[in-house]
Amino acid sequence: MPHYNLAFIGFGNVGQALVRLLDRKRDALKSSYHITYSVTGIATGRHGCAVNVRGLNTEDAIRLLQNGQSIASLSSNAVNDPMSVIEGSNADVMFENSPVNKDTGRPAIDHIRAALKRNMHAITANKGPVVHGYRELTELAKSKHRVFGFESTVLGGAPLFSVFREAFPLAEFHSFHGILNSTTNVILSRMERGESFEDAVRYCQESGVAETDPSNDVDGWDAAIKVAALVTVLMKIPFTPQQVNPTGIRGITPGMIASAKSEGKRYKLVCSAERNGETVKASVRPELLDASSPLFHIMDSDSGVTVHTDVLPGYSITETDETKMFGSADETAYGLFADFVRAGNPLR
Amino acid sequence: MPHYNLAFIGFGNVGQALVRLLDRKRDALKSSYHITYSVTGIATGRHGCAVNVRGLNTEDAIRLLQNGQSIASLSSNAVNDPMSVIEGSNADVMFENSPVNKDTGRPAIDHIRAALKRNMHAITANKGPVVHGYRELTELAKSKHRVFGFESTVLGGAPLFSVFREAFPLAEFHSFHGILNSTTNVILSRMERGESFEDAVRYCQESGVAETDPSNDVDGWDAAIKVAALVTVLMKIPFTPQQVNPTGIRGITPGMIASAKSEGKRYKLVCSAERNGETVKASVRPELLDASSPLFHIMDSDSGVTVHTDVLPGYSITETDETKMFGSADETAYGLFADFVRAGNPLR
Repeated sequence: MPHYNLAFIGFGNVGQALVRLLDRKRDALKSSYHITYSVTGIATGRHGCAVNVRGLNTEDAIRLLQNGQSIASLSSNAVNDPMSVIEGSNADVMFENSPVNKDTGRPAIDHIRAALKRNMHAITANKGPVVHGYRELTELAKSKHRVFGFESTVLGGAPLFSVFREAFPLAEFHSFHGILNSTTNVILSRMERGESFEDAVRYCQESGVAETDPSNDVDGWDAAIKVAALVTVLMKIPFTPQQVNPTGIRGITPGMIASAKSEGKRYKLVCSAERNGETVKASVRPELLDASSPLFHIMDSDSGVTVHTDVLPGYSITETDETKMFGSADETAYGLFADFVRAGNPLR
Repeated sequence: MPHYNLAFIGFGNVGQALVRLLDRKRDALKSSYHITYSVTGIATGRHGCAVNVRGLNTEDAIRLLQNGQSIASLSSNAVNDPMSVIEGSNADVMFENSPVNKDTGRPAIDHIRAALKRNMHAITANKGPVVHGYRELTELAKSKHRVFGFESTVLGGAPLFSVFREAFPLAEFHSFHGILNSTTNVILSRMERGESFEDAVRYCQESGVAETDPSNDVDGWDAAIKVAALVTVLMKIPFTPQQVNPTGIRGITPGMIASAKSEGKRYKLVCSAERNGETVKASVRPELLDASSPLFHIMDSDSGVTVHTDVLPGYSITETDETKMFGSADETAYGLFADFVRAGNPLR
């Protein structure tokens, strides 16, 4: 029965949600996949690092963090940064959840490279390494017979990359369009219901949908990174967010939204890409949609994408939350979890 | 490089579309999966059977069928029925596409059992064997290290079963709801646009969406079989169409549709199932939906399903055809093709 040592680089809401999910699925992992695990390394952004190859108590770690204290007291050896956690954790799997860097993908890309070189599986919810290091990291993972997993980078943790990799053999991806950024979709949905842009942004910040600085979302960069990741992976053509050159939603006024609504239409921040031979035209920009578009009906924090291939007409995946009972960190955690199961079970 | 002999039991629109798709993807199968193939057996419903272990010319077979002639002239040995084609084809993969029998699943179930016992992979678009033979055939396939594939039985050939099998590790399926029968959805969509029930049925028959006798669709049995298949496979609880006890759309009058439309609502033949411990409540019945339901927007021959799990809130897969350039046989053929690639590439 294989035992997996796990290292967490970045241990915010997503990392903590993953620990809870792993704990909840501990028996099922063992009985269905013969997988057992320990957490042997944690690197936080502002509350220290800890390693213990015999296993860290994650409940203690979460409690310390909730009290704003450092987790260094849990460590068997002094470790000060992510790289020393990767080195000192003796991990089999590294979960990379540090903040996104749209321009270079670093330092996440360095963490993933280091982990793969040490024969760890590397699993991330961070889009930067997919956009800036996809080819290098995929080839490195392959040469090491390890998984470079990034299911959670687009559509939260809802299966997307694995669907197109496993369930669409020999399909050619011609084009896709989707709503991929939750913050802007929440803002536009709330503005349609009469809220001001500023109040909608504040709602997103307070509810945790948006970062403290929402400009990455509002100006279309988060969506552009996701478009670049989808083009790079599905269409196998390297693509950067800069090439997407997004237009955000700042130009959409309450008057425009009201006028659209009166005609049964609405603005959406639409993500699109279309392949033509070896070139791709991609965009992120506000578009005025009517009810005949499937994207018209994706409201609030829901998201979705429709792909067009040579083998099927339109195939759409939509992530919704009618119950409002799931946090986005829980959803993201499931994508990381699914990548972990795949890593631990490559021959199923 | 493995070479696959293929037998087709049932060789109507779907079987012929699969042959065309295989031909189109021949080079890609070889370069990406090292798969080559020959068609060594064909059993038709009314135009004879043929086997040749050195390969049948499928273009000749299709031409004969288009002329209403028997394919027996192509055979190297006299074969008269599906079982003798299975026996005489020396096939590695059998594609079962005989007509659906909702009450017993036979004779498809017999063909699949016979093929698996002869160490063939068995791949079908026929829902009957899934509903009536899932456990037996799955276990038989497992014991033979062969694939029992049925991706094409629900949502045409769009990936569904493979998504939930491969991309949702350790998820618990709590409930689903969907639009799973195209004929009734086309009829209701056309009635909403003012067509009579009879004219809409005739349209479905003439365009090939419905069978000559559309009652299987109209009375909800096709949808009930699909619900039973999804419950059986996803929730791992054996379930029959009879337990679903469907209500069809004959009770929906033009007046009801017009009145619903005036309130911004519409009737849909909704398929639902909800698990509660080891019991399942499932239904197929017309429901009055408003625009807040994702199913409200699935029109004409589109279909889709939303599943609720313990790990993600709502995850929807929708199959659409904005281009209207795909025949339903082409889509079904892709599901069979995908199952074939999986069968030929179990360790990817």
